[in-house]
This record gives sequence, structure tokens and C-alpha cells, in this order.
Amino acid sequence: MLTPTDVLISEVGPRDGLQSVKATMATADKFRWIDALAASGLREIEVCSFVPAHLMPQMADAAEVVRHALSRPGVTVAALVPNLRGAEAALRAGAHKLTIPVSASHAHSLANVRKTPDEMVEVVRAVARLRDALAPGVQIEAGISTAFGCTLQGVVPEDEVIRLSVACVAAGADESGLSDTTGMANPAQTRRLFQRLQAELGHQAGAAHMHNTRGLGLANCLAAYDVGVRIFDASLGGLGGCPHAPGASGNVVSEDLVFMFEAMGVRTGVDLEKLIAARACLMAGLPGEPLYGMTPEAGLPLGWKQGAAPV
Amino acid sequence: MLTPTDVLISEVGPRDGLQSVKATMATADKFRWIDALAASGLREIEVCSFVPAHLMPQMADAAEVVRHALSRPGVTVAALVPNLRGAEAALRAGAHKLTIPVSASHAHSLANVRKTPDEMVEVVRAVARLRDALAPGVQIEAGISTAFGCTLQGVVPEDEVIRLSVACVAAGADESGLSDTTGMANPAQTRRLFQRLQAELGHQAGAAHMHNTRGLGLANCLAAYDVGVRIFDASLGGLGGCPHAPGASGNVVSEDLVFMFEAMGVRTGVDLEKLIAARACLMAGLPGEPLYGMTPEAGLPLGWKQGAAPV
Repeated sequence: MLTPTDVLISEVGPRDGLQSVKATMATADKFRWIDALAASGLREIEVCSFVPAHLMPQMADAAEVVRHALSRPGVTVAALVPNLRGAEAALRAGAHKLTIPVSASHAHSLANVRKTPDEMVEVVRAVARLRDALAPGVQIEAGISTAFGCTLQGVVPEDEVIRLSVACVAAGADESGLSDTTGMANPAQTRRLFQRLQAELGHQAGAAHMHNTRGLGLANCLAAYDVGVRIFDASLGGLGGCPHAPGASGNVVSEDLVFMFEAMGVRTGVDLEKLIAARACLMAGLPGEPLYGMTPEAGLPLGWKQGAAPV
Repeated sequence: MLTPTDVLISEVGPRDGLQSVKATMATADKFRWIDALAASGLREIEVCSFVPAHLMPQMADAAEVVRHALSRPGVTVAALVPNLRGAEAALRAGAHKLTIPVSASHAHSLANVRKTPDEMVEVVRAVARLRDALAPGVQIEAGISTAFGCTLQGVVPEDEVIRLSVACVAAGADESGLSDTTGMANPAQTRRLFQRLQAELGHQAGAAHMHNTRGLGLANCLAAYDVGVRIFDASLGGLGGCPHAPGASGNVVSEDLVFMFEAMGVRTGVDLEKLIAARACLMAGLPGEPLYGMTPEAGLPLGWKQGAAPV
């Protein structure tokens, strides 16, 4: 499973996807879906959020899901934690990686976590201290959300995005990534922001988490790849969005993203046929939920051989 | 309408789109749709194919459609012509531009036009002679189809694509463009092929005609733009495909392509709100036909101002 790869696809469907739909997937279905994702060769899966069950019943089984995912060899098990309490639960469950959402939009930050962006930097600091005490090997990623624009406040200043990214690393995060929570990013902006992020943070510049709200998801991932980004969040079937950013639908589709990279000769380590097969588990666990994805619909091209393309 | 622009979006829906659907749009509906497309600022529209009506009844009114489109100021009226007879009819109707499909796949060429690729180069030569005699100002574009792969024969050698592109220009075409008829292109291949095309043909290197079959349409357009391509075919609502290439569905969606470029600060000359409004005419003329397009579904972002983005 741990063959050399050129990019890391971080699957966020079980977290970002499931928290965006109304239905609650049964725990056993989550297990089967995560197993299928892991079997496709994905090496990082964000499996849940540690949030109060009365606010998000879809995530009530978070600890159980983490413990199950830990049984999959070679998979980094990530969990989203919006606060210190969630972080403690995630660390105690054994998660390998914590993602803390830090919104660059003041309005979105208040709507999403009822804290200002700078108050969230203090959350990062507190979580990093707890991590140091409880489980020093665990990675912390700050996910700078609404980094490309906000459906509540409109433009988000790029200086503010970069300032928060740097502040989170200074507060103890191992890396800061940028999220197009609202699907407002374009390729020129994506290149510009990730170049600035890399200039400030070097190897601590994190993932590109792009959405396909306006169809630009893959173009933005290509733009990020062009300037050196090598970690990409994506969601099987494009499931996901943000409940507190109206109209923010649709993560980048994992299947289409893997197809793009593999067709280019960029190795993902993910077996595309097995990844497409994992849709059956997702659909079984969320009957009737519409999925995105052009590659699964069209099928693989005649003569497709994964990894055969020249770089 | 003729403001300075950075790229030319060539709308192919009334030709590529309508020949791919079973229904026949009424002539009056075609007029209204073309008027709405022209009103959005599109400066080139491929309005029909000149093909025998018994083979493609959707195109029986081709001459009438060309004559109507000629009444729209500032619009280059293009027509697809697969042979000399079609070219003569298009020239007599007054088309400004003829597109001749030349497939780089031997198998697809025979299935599509019952001629080999080299026989199609001779068609280009004959059409160019006719053009010189009848209407010397008319442009001829060779559209090299299946340039990125073929659903019938699989791999299409890049050398063959370039050889045919050059042969068509030598035979009298003003430019040769490359078509991803089957939706098999990837961004690395797109860059490589257009760079070779430009090296061989210079300013006679033509449009990128990409499909969105596997979701990579915009990423491939971005890749082509990056290496200097400035003419892009696209189709309102992504309508289109190729009846002789199984599974080849979905042109690049004009609305999403214009959104991408305008968001990047690349001027298209197309008013995105008016372009989205043109979908109503398309839907009225083809009731029940499914359309693609993420931007129309999501709406324009908060604070969107066309042309306001930095380059």
C-alpha cells in the first residue's frame, strides 16, 4: 500500500461529507465505507468531527469511528476538532491528526464556531499544548476556511488569510492549509495564495481543500499543483459543503481528481477502480443522496492503464 | 460589443449541441437562442452543420439559421462542413467561417465521415480552393478530432495529430485546432500537444475544443491557456458530444468557462449574467433536455463584479 507517490489525496468524505447531509449514516455503514476507501489505497482519511452530538448527531459515534479506522494499516486517521474539548476526545480516541478550522472571514467564523479568527488561533495554541502533553506524535493542521471568499462577507483579504496561516503555525500547528469553503476560488488566486503561503511557511504550507461549487475544483487543484502543492483534500462523490456558508456545496470529487492526476502521470497511490467501487458503500449508507463525479459516470477510457502515462 | 478581450469563446452549442440530441429544435427557437447568445457578447457562434437532412434532420434548416445569425452584429458565424457539398452550401448561405472535422483516429474518421484522415485532408484542400473561388474572405478551420484519444481505437499517436494539423494548414486551412472529442485529455497532454502545435503552426494554431466527460474540461482549458491558447470552444449548458464516439458526452460548459476566466481577470467579452439567461431559450427549445453547469446552479458569488478581478 505504501508505494512511492507524488501527491497525497486526503479523503474528507466521512467528515466533511457526512456533516453536510441531513441523514445520519449508521456506524456499521461508516465502517464499511472507510474500509473501502482504505482498500483503494488512500493514505489519509478524515473520518469524523468531534462536536457535541446534540449539535451534529451525524458525528455522535466519532470516537468509535476513529478506533475502527485505526485498524486499517497505512492510513493516517484524521479528525476535525473545533475546540479543546473535541481535541481531547480525539486524542483520547487515538486520532493521528487533528484538523482545526480557522475561518479567515470574521462573519463566517462567528457563524461556524461562535469565535473570532484570533480566538481560534488561541484554540490552536491550547490544542497544541494539550497534544504536547497527551500525544506528542499527533499532527495538527489548521484549515484556513473561506480563504478565497465568503458567502457572508464577500471578499476575504489575502493578507488576512496569510496572517492567520502564519499565526496558527506560530501557535503550534504543524501546518496551515487553505480551504475554498464557498467555491469562490479561481486558478489565478489559487496560485497566488499558495505561493504566498509557501513563501511564508515552507514545508509547513498545507493542503489545498478546494470545492467544485462553480465547476472549478479540478482547475484550482491543477493550479495549486503547478505551484508545488502536494496535498489535496477531496471527497468521494463530491459529498460535502458547509452548513454555515449558504450555497457552499460540493467538495472536489475524489474520483475525478485521482483520474486527473493519474492520467497526467502523477502518482496518487490510489487504485481508481477500487475508489469508484467505494461509491457503492457510500450509496448503501446514504440511500437516495445525490453524488457528483463525471469519471464514474463516463467510465475509464479505453486502454486506461493506471500509472502508465508519462510524467 | 467589440471591447478588447483576452480570449475568444467560440460557442458551439447550436451545432455540436443540437446534433447530439435526439430532438430537433424548431427553427424559430434556434433564432431566439442564437440571439440570446449573441446578446451576451459572444463574438463567434458555430450555428449549424451542413450535412444531408436525411442523416441529421436537426440541421435541415442550416442555411436559414446562417442567414439569421448574419443579422447579429459583431458575430462571426461559423458552420461545420464535412465535405465539399456542405462547404458550397455554407459559402452560398454566407457563413464567415467553415470548420472541417478531421479525425486523427483512423477508426473514428471512418465511423464519422466514412473517409480516412488523409482523405479528409484532401477535402480541406478542395474546400479551400472553392473558398478561394467563391468567397476569399471566409476562414477555414480544421478541427482535429479525437486528438487526445479515441473511444474506438484507444491511444491516438501525438505525432499523427501534429502531422494532420500541419497537413491541413498546408492544404489551405487558416488554422488547425485540437478537439478532445472523447473526453480523454489530461492537462499535461493538453499542454504538450498545444505547445507542439504552436511550434509547428505559430499563429495558425487554433482553438482548444475540450470536453467535460470526466470532469477535466476546465482544467484542460486552463492548461491550454497556460501555454498560450486564446480560442476556446464551449457549449451553453455543456450540450454536445459526438454521435459516433460512444460515451463522448459533454462539451466544456460555456457558463463555467466564462466564470473561470473572468474570475481570473481574463476578459472574455461575455456578460456572464446574460449568458446564464440564454439557458432559458435553450431550455424552451429543447424541453426536458438535461443541462450541465455548476455556476448557473450555484449562482454568482457575493460581491461578483465582472472584470473587476486583477489579472
